[in-house]
Amino acid sequence: MEKPYVVGIDIGGTNSVFGVVDARGTILYSSSIKTSKHADVNDYIDELAQALRMVIDQAGGLDKIKGIGVGAPNGNYFSGCIEFAPNLPWKGKIPLAQLISEKLDGVPVTLTNDANAAAIGEMTYGAARGMKDFIVITLGTGVGSGIVIGGNLVYGHDGFAGELGHVIVRRNNGRMCGCGRQGCLEAYTSATGVARTAREYLEIRNDDSVLRDLDPDAITSKDVFDAAMKGDPIALEIFKTTGTMLGEAFADFIAFSSPEAIILFGGLTKAGDLIMNPIKEALDKNILKVFEGKAKVLFSQLKESDAAVLGASALGWEVKEV
Amino acid sequence: MEKPYVVGIDIGGTNSVFGVVDARGTILYSSSIKTSKHADVNDYIDELAQALRMVIDQAGGLDKIKGIGVGAPNGNYFSGCIEFAPNLPWKGKIPLAQLISEKLDGVPVTLTNDANAAAIGEMTYGAARGMKDFIVITLGTGVGSGIVIGGNLVYGHDGFAGELGHVIVRRNNGRMCGCGRQGCLEAYTSATGVARTAREYLEIRNDDSVLRDLDPDAITSKDVFDAAMKGDPIALEIFKTTGTMLGEAFADFIAFSSPEAIILFGGLTKAGDLIMNPIKEALDKNILKVFEGKAKVLFSQLKESDAAVLGASALGWEVKEV
Repeated sequence: MEKPYVVGIDIGGTNSVFGVVDARGTILYSSSIKTSKHADVNDYIDELAQALRMVIDQAGGLDKIKGIGVGAPNGNYFSGCIEFAPNLPWKGKIPLAQLISEKLDGVPVTLTNDANAAAIGEMTYGAARGMKDFIVITLGTGVGSGIVIGGNLVYGHDGFAGELGHVIVRRNNGRMCGCGRQGCLEAYTSATGVARTAREYLEIRNDDSVLRDLDPDAITSKDVFDAAMKGDPIALEIFKTTGTMLGEAFADFIAFSSPEAIILFGGLTKAGDLIMNPIKEALDKNILKVFEGKAKVLFSQLKESDAAVLGASALGWEVKEV
Repeated sequence: MEKPYVVGIDIGGTNSVFGVVDARGTILYSSSIKTSKHADVNDYIDELAQALRMVIDQAGGLDKIKGIGVGAPNGNYFSGCIEFAPNLPWKGKIPLAQLISEKLDGVPVTLTNDANAAAIGEMTYGAARGMKDFIVITLGTGVGSGIVIGGNLVYGHDGFAGELGHVIVRRNNGRMCGCGRQGCLEAYTSATGVARTAREYLEIRNDDSVLRDLDPDAITSKDVFDAAMKGDPIALEIFKTTGTMLGEAFADFIAFSSPEAIILFGGLTKAGDLIMNPIKEALDKNILKVFEGKAKVLFSQLKESDAAVLGASALGWEVKEV
């Protein structure tokens, strides 16, 4: 009999969340452990394997599990390794897929980065069901992307393709980005980028804003959203600027792979129309004629609390032995 | 027995060149007709079919032909149509693949645009043999691209993917591009872009240049190349600027699909190191850390006079009935 479940593991800098998922995308059992607790990856794997066995046993045991998918920062699909992830406690190349598989009687484990996991999640359970060509853009602390072309995730020749948060959108005098370069999309349109824009606007402008009541260094994209919902003009303008930069960048992405849709995922999508309207407006204004009106911009259809685990779990359906 | 030959047809605004090609990429018989002579596409097809039959008969007849590949501006792989090509005499959608096939006893005809044909040509006979992930950039009158991911040409959901000449490289005050927008890569790094840069430099600067002996409006990229070979400082700087813009753009393209190589094709590649050195320098300077030193930049290995026909012919090996 076909094994009925997969396991998805989302490894973040703070927490590792995981769950047993069925073919319809329902998380049946889930749990989490602290990622940051263990400086030694072997200790981490021991605790993770123990916790995984508990949720897997609830689902009927390892025999029911077709595969495990893992989404992790800098996760490489080809090697199964986390490679030099700046926000994880373990340095260098960690053969994570192999380590997990060994602890769980050799069940197949597939690894990719979090944005690619999100793209596979959308294709399997979400807004991209039935699509063969689409791009998922994750708008969180950073900006990531998962690109699907002809029904396949784009890994590139080295497994690291799809770094659309790091295309340069301001060539001269661009903002410093965490990657060490200047002017990356991520430096402007991530949640932290939005907060930076807020600090910049408050400093160089004089008009009123409820944001002025806050400690500038502590302003978050959530504060900007709350202010915009109250009609604060500076906050509204920040979303307009952010959305415009995204829409401009999307026009270039479409020139590359001509996707059916660009799907937005992550914290910043909570801004809804505040971010979507300027994106669409800028996209319409900047799109090459041959692509006019063709590519949709959509929000993710995965419930946010579940999305990362669901995305990772979708990889478990692909059979790839480690 | 497997049919031993394919036919490649390269349709340009002025001439249509075609030839019978064997599996090793040798053009056995070739000929051409004037594209621009016929305002009615049916007259054009009549003359083309007659001329095609002559070269095909030299090769032993239609029974020897596995398929015909056509490279044409705005050629759509999915529909087999030329769609709204500004530089061809026929307006609207022309079902070119079907029209040719009907005149030649139903032999399979596959159509794509010229840059995609170049990419398939490099993969089949040229610098990309054995590669699964690469991008061909054509530097001619315009700038085109053919993108291969996982061994497949990227067509996108509508058949028009790969318009990398029209990513925006200068967001503010960019040069007008033939596409109606501003700041496209093509407006700077095509042969006509190089000539525009020359006119701009001559106007805004005062230093000596052999280019000042020419009628500014008649300057071509060939003139700039000749001047650079004589050590003319303005001409050298024009190539440096052009190469730098290409290298900067390539860093973004690599962030998208992480190709093994970017292959340069077309007239401007005759500039050799004059264009290659600044490209590599700018690429090294702008590349995201994870991709450092990974992607090669190469010149096409197809002989220029044959390249377009060879590229188109490579499509003929793919069996796709119309």
